[in-house]
Amino acid sequence: MSTYNVSPLNKVKRGPNRAMYDVEEINKIIDSGFIAHVAYNYNGKAICIPMAYGRIENKIYLHGSLKNRMLLALLEAREATLTIMHLDGLVLARSGFHHSVNYRSVTLFASVQKIDNAKTKEVALKCVMDYMIPNRWDSLRTMNTKEFNSTLVLELEIQTASAKVRAEGVNDEKMDLELPIWAGIIPIKQIAEAPINDALLAEDVDMPQHITNYYTTHKP
Amino acid sequence: MSTYNVSPLNKVKRGPNRAMYDVEEINKIIDSGFIAHVAYNYNGKAICIPMAYGRIENKIYLHGSLKNRMLLALLEAREATLTIMHLDGLVLARSGFHHSVNYRSVTLFASVQKIDNAKTKEVALKCVMDYMIPNRWDSLRTMNTKEFNSTLVLELEIQTASAKVRAEGVNDEKMDLELPIWAGIIPIKQIAEAPINDALLAEDVDMPQHITNYYTTHKP
Repeated sequence: MSTYNVSPLNKVKRGPNRAMYDVEEINKIIDSGFIAHVAYNYNGKAICIPMAYGRIENKIYLHGSLKNRMLLALLEAREATLTIMHLDGLVLARSGFHHSVNYRSVTLFASVQKIDNAKTKEVALKCVMDYMIPNRWDSLRTMNTKEFNSTLVLELEIQTASAKVRAEGVNDEKMDLELPIWAGIIPIKQIAEAPINDALLAEDVDMPQHITNYYTTHKP
Repeated sequence: MSTYNVSPLNKVKRGPNRAMYDVEEINKIIDSGFIAHVAYNYNGKAICIPMAYGRIENKIYLHGSLKNRMLLALLEAREATLTIMHLDGLVLARSGFHHSVNYRSVTLFASVQKIDNAKTKEVALKCVMDYMIPNRWDSLRTMNTKEFNSTLVLELEIQTASAKVRAEGVNDEKMDLELPIWAGIIPIKQIAEAPINDALLAEDVDMPQHITNYYTTHKP
């Protein structure tokens, strides 16, 4: 089982017992979402922006307008940092100090290049789409040349990464356990509600399997 | 109704029709969450990290360990950028190009200072706690001096900000509307499941009102 090299850049310092550098575990956290917060520098200020992504092996794909300030900044810097976080619960202790959240998060440090090859670009766009909702791409109207040419696609190759996960109960001070204060966990989840047909849907278009599958696997 | 000044820093360029600079609308988006992604510079690399926050008027509070790399970097830079995003739905068009998500997001540009005054620090810590779950702080064991002194609290005063919101249906090309392709919205929500008592809960401790209230207002 392979792990990412640990350097001062990606070493988790606060709560190192919750840190992981294992590639497979990190990929699992990446694959549980489709929106990352991507950090970039704008005139020396660090800013981050939520972006849709997809992953194939050790590559993350981002796309956007040819004029997207953030994508252009990443391209110029030739490197990017992405954070993906899933909130799993509120950890409610007897003291404020021991309150926490359960979560799975990764920080990815990647090199950046623009994809020019048309075939690779299409594979990347399909990947981003299908990370949002599996099997969607193949059901769609094919991309036309104008759309294709006006979309910037970046390939981010992960150079190193770290994960931080908390998945446990309340850790109060021993001397606090007998206090008459409620403590516990409230699980938090991101869920899907029932799909809503577009008002302009053509006649006789049924909801396809990939949509009902998504709902079935994401409903409360 | 007051609005933030628009400068090249906070002007929304992609999709300007979805941009807002109104203070009250921005506060509403801030107040719908308790975790922000905070961007900082580490040796010239932009990195972002999810952090709990609270807001009072135009101030955002963050807290953490005295040795927290990110908080110390913000303090040194004397400025910070925060992004808060709520995902509200998948927007599934007939073409890949018109896929989108419904969301409410803000980017806040703030000055940063450390809170040294004990009274202000306590107000800030209570604020962060109660943003996670309202009315929690007053039910807890009081913070002791050791905990208080080992917690770093930063006050971020919002200097300018922008919001970007998408809250609508599918916007397909007119000529695509008659295609036999399913299009629509899948609403996405963050929900709470039933609270789970800590296994070591003292006898006769009932679930307090603020916990049942939270569950009632956040359940599916």
